[in-house]
Amino acid sequence: MSAPVSPPCPLSEVTTDSREVYKGRLLHAFSDTVRLPDGRQAQREYIVHPGAVMVIPLLEVPGCDEPRVVLERQFRYPMKQVMIEFPAGKLEPGENRLACARRELQEETGYRAREWALAGVIHPVISYSTEFIEIWFARSLVAGSNRLDDGEFLEAFTASVGELGQWCREGQVTDAKTVAGMLWLQNVLSGAWELNWHTPED
Amino acid sequence: MSAPVSPPCPLSEVTTDSREVYKGRLLHAFSDTVRLPDGRQAQREYIVHPGAVMVIPLLEVPGCDEPRVVLERQFRYPMKQVMIEFPAGKLEPGENRLACARRELQEETGYRAREWALAGVIHPVISYSTEFIEIWFARSLVAGSNRLDDGEFLEAFTASVGELGQWCREGQVTDAKTVAGMLWLQNVLSGAWELNWHTPED
Repeated sequence: MSAPVSPPCPLSEVTTDSREVYKGRLLHAFSDTVRLPDGRQAQREYIVHPGAVMVIPLLEVPGCDEPRVVLERQFRYPMKQVMIEFPAGKLEPGENRLACARRELQEETGYRAREWALAGVIHPVISYSTEFIEIWFARSLVAGSNRLDDGEFLEAFTASVGELGQWCREGQVTDAKTVAGMLWLQNVLSGAWELNWHTPED
Repeated sequence: MSAPVSPPCPLSEVTTDSREVYKGRLLHAFSDTVRLPDGRQAQREYIVHPGAVMVIPLLEVPGCDEPRVVLERQFRYPMKQVMIEFPAGKLEPGENRLACARRELQEETGYRAREWALAGVIHPVISYSTEFIEIWFARSLVAGSNRLDDGEFLEAFTASVGELGQWCREGQVTDAKTVAGMLWLQNVLSGAWELNWHTPED
């Protein structure tokens, strides 16, 4: 036998059993049995999630140097309060990620964007969910009317980038995806991080 | 009857029923029935979480202008890969948050810190978990030996702040709490966001 090309990771865990423990309307939970690096067994419980996209919509205001961003206020039940966040939504089965970003932006805020740029991906809950969130920037926005899902209640509004930064610092914005988006926003606007903008065809 | 001091929030949802749907070793899930703002009913499923703390450990290196940070590599089962993240851990029942931050830093990395500053809080999963993560900065670090929990496998290492920023941009770091921590780190080190440092008594 030849030697393996890359050695096995000394931290990795190997699945020996997997079973579904809960399937609700939203949450889908599994409990797996794994073999630890020292050979012993352990249980790993986690939520299986289809993934999501988040949009950072840049609104250039004529006569104003600082761009504004489109945000949402939405009551988030596990938080028992209204949260401020960037527009975001879950991927539908088989849905293209940019198509999802464009759909969510329009449904939730009414805006369409002519230019789009992929920033990156974040993983909000690496200890107990498979969820990823792909982050997109949108600019050259054109206002329109929103089209909320049945039973969805939220308010779209705009804020300056300076206000959003202040809210992250002072605790009015605590949603992790939105705080992570603020890192991207700050570095893109300063010119430190470059984006590749493109205009998708309709 | 006198008028209410503040009007009810037009976005809020009222709990009319709550039941536990899964209780494993890690995950504790509930399904609640709520009354929506339009009077209709909906189901809300979510994980109840005790909350956590994350530590951003600043390592001043003699003769080096740029501070370094202490990070960890850990295999995260839902991601099926090794992730780079700041030290963090769940609160034990009744545990003081700073005490938890000090415990996790020492257990996972071996470092003790003389000076601490509370940055803020983030909520990683506002749509399906009650989890919060309180973010603490630590400096004046003194190295020691770590003391991992039984069945816990991770590697602590250090990186420059510039390297960490690059990894957030390029996708080697995607853990949302760590990306959110990078926003704090960047703004604290630039002087834009101030912290109140203090030295806790032992």
